[in-house]
Amino acid sequence: MGRVRDALRFRDGKKNAVKPGDFPVGPTSKSNAAKQLQATADRLDQLQEALYASASQSVLLVLQGMDTSGKGGTIRHACGLVNPQGLHIKSFKKPTRTELKHDFLWRVRRALPTPGMIGVFDRSHYEDVLIAKVDSLVEPDEVEKRYDLINAFEQELADSGVVLIKCFLNISREEQRKRLIARLERPEKHWKYNPADLDARSKWDDYQDAYADALTRCDTDTAPWFVVPSDHKWYRNWAVSQLLLETLESMDPQYPEPSFDVEEELKRVKAAN
Amino acid sequence: MGRVRDALRFRDGKKNAVKPGDFPVGPTSKSNAAKQLQATADRLDQLQEALYASASQSVLLVLQGMDTSGKGGTIRHACGLVNPQGLHIKSFKKPTRTELKHDFLWRVRRALPTPGMIGVFDRSHYEDVLIAKVDSLVEPDEVEKRYDLINAFEQELADSGVVLIKCFLNISREEQRKRLIARLERPEKHWKYNPADLDARSKWDDYQDAYADALTRCDTDTAPWFVVPSDHKWYRNWAVSQLLLETLESMDPQYPEPSFDVEEELKRVKAAN
Repeated sequence: MGRVRDALRFRDGKKNAVKPGDFPVGPTSKSNAAKQLQATADRLDQLQEALYASASQSVLLVLQGMDTSGKGGTIRHACGLVNPQGLHIKSFKKPTRTELKHDFLWRVRRALPTPGMIGVFDRSHYEDVLIAKVDSLVEPDEVEKRYDLINAFEQELADSGVVLIKCFLNISREEQRKRLIARLERPEKHWKYNPADLDARSKWDDYQDAYADALTRCDTDTAPWFVVPSDHKWYRNWAVSQLLLETLESMDPQYPEPSFDVEEELKRVKAAN
Repeated sequence: MGRVRDALRFRDGKKNAVKPGDFPVGPTSKSNAAKQLQATADRLDQLQEALYASASQSVLLVLQGMDTSGKGGTIRHACGLVNPQGLHIKSFKKPTRTELKHDFLWRVRRALPTPGMIGVFDRSHYEDVLIAKVDSLVEPDEVEKRYDLINAFEQELADSGVVLIKCFLNISREEQRKRLIARLERPEKHWKYNPADLDARSKWDDYQDAYADALTRCDTDTAPWFVVPSDHKWYRNWAVSQLLLETLESMDPQYPEPSFDVEEELKRVKAAN
């Protein structure tokens, strides 16, 4: 299934086997990662164009992680390697009133990538079994039901040609502290800071448990979870770009056959004024 | 207003003053353009982040041009310099039945960038005074009305904080021929070729006239048109990235003041577990 996919694939209980600061596969230095990223960019570019041209399958990259784990940075530096015309990025915020009137998957269905596109979810339906569980926004048996609904939904996506890559950007508690402090010490990063982030931080262990449950209950072969060590931003960006690359390689998108006679059209163009 | 903005700004009758293969401003070689592009990328990155954070104004880059003029390539290489999370790209195809039931600006209004975003239109409402005029899809007096409606619409956008950059990607007839042939000679480019492109090509002069009219009628100080020499792809990409950069510089987006007490929050983070 691909070297990086295999190394980072979540398996029951393995969530904590790879530490947030580890390099379980690939480069172990920033400069090596940067070199590899350029080769990846060229290959991603080719594969994305074929995916877009074929317009049959699509990719959905789901990014989840604690505050400051780098969902935005991953989009900027890993997804930023891809032609932006082929990306469909959706950030899921606190549900609006309208969204709350519908079932939790309603807004997710509306944001799915169309065939040929690479969809990117900055947070996702998993918030509905994470914050919903930690803050007891719903009853425990509703959370249980949602795992099943998510699995059914993701199977439905897989059946319709949407290939899922679900990434848990795994940072350590200590790294989060550093990043929160950095946001406060740099005026141009103040806008990224939210006092409420500390409330979530105070429930760190509860969130880790909720992630462990969600990953365990919703890791399937058709919609696997990957645990991305994210204490080092350059490693996180490299890893996600590789997951994207290996996934596209395994999909092997093909340019469509032309619906016209190529030789005939060449003659027409050359004869035209 | 900026060196490149000034040099490429359309003015009555000037559409043909700058030739598609000219370099009226900036680099005159591909390698110099590439060097400048990297510096531009870093600066764009900073300005885009401030625009996004301020979430007050937005940019709307309108790309128009004949087939093969490189609207897609511009998005890939010029807009691709920007964080994709801050881009909202919309391609306007032949109107759907639903779209045709509404006035021509309806679908355009639905695709406008939200505050803080850089919107990119791959074709736009200008198709409704270009192909609509050339193919007589509407009466001539309707075309006249549409110029006025477009001007009123764009003034409304400017008043609501949407800064427009309208680019006519200007290629020569000979360059289009080369690009159409290249699409046919490279199997991985076949999907970009459409036999109907030759029909539009056969009306080349009519299209040039329609562009001249649209640019003349709809060039205003609040929503100016720029004529981008596009026979050289590297020049086109450089020029559009500079127009974007100069526009963002003139907007001078500012990070919002924090809504919290920074020192207090720093203490809280440091005291937290």
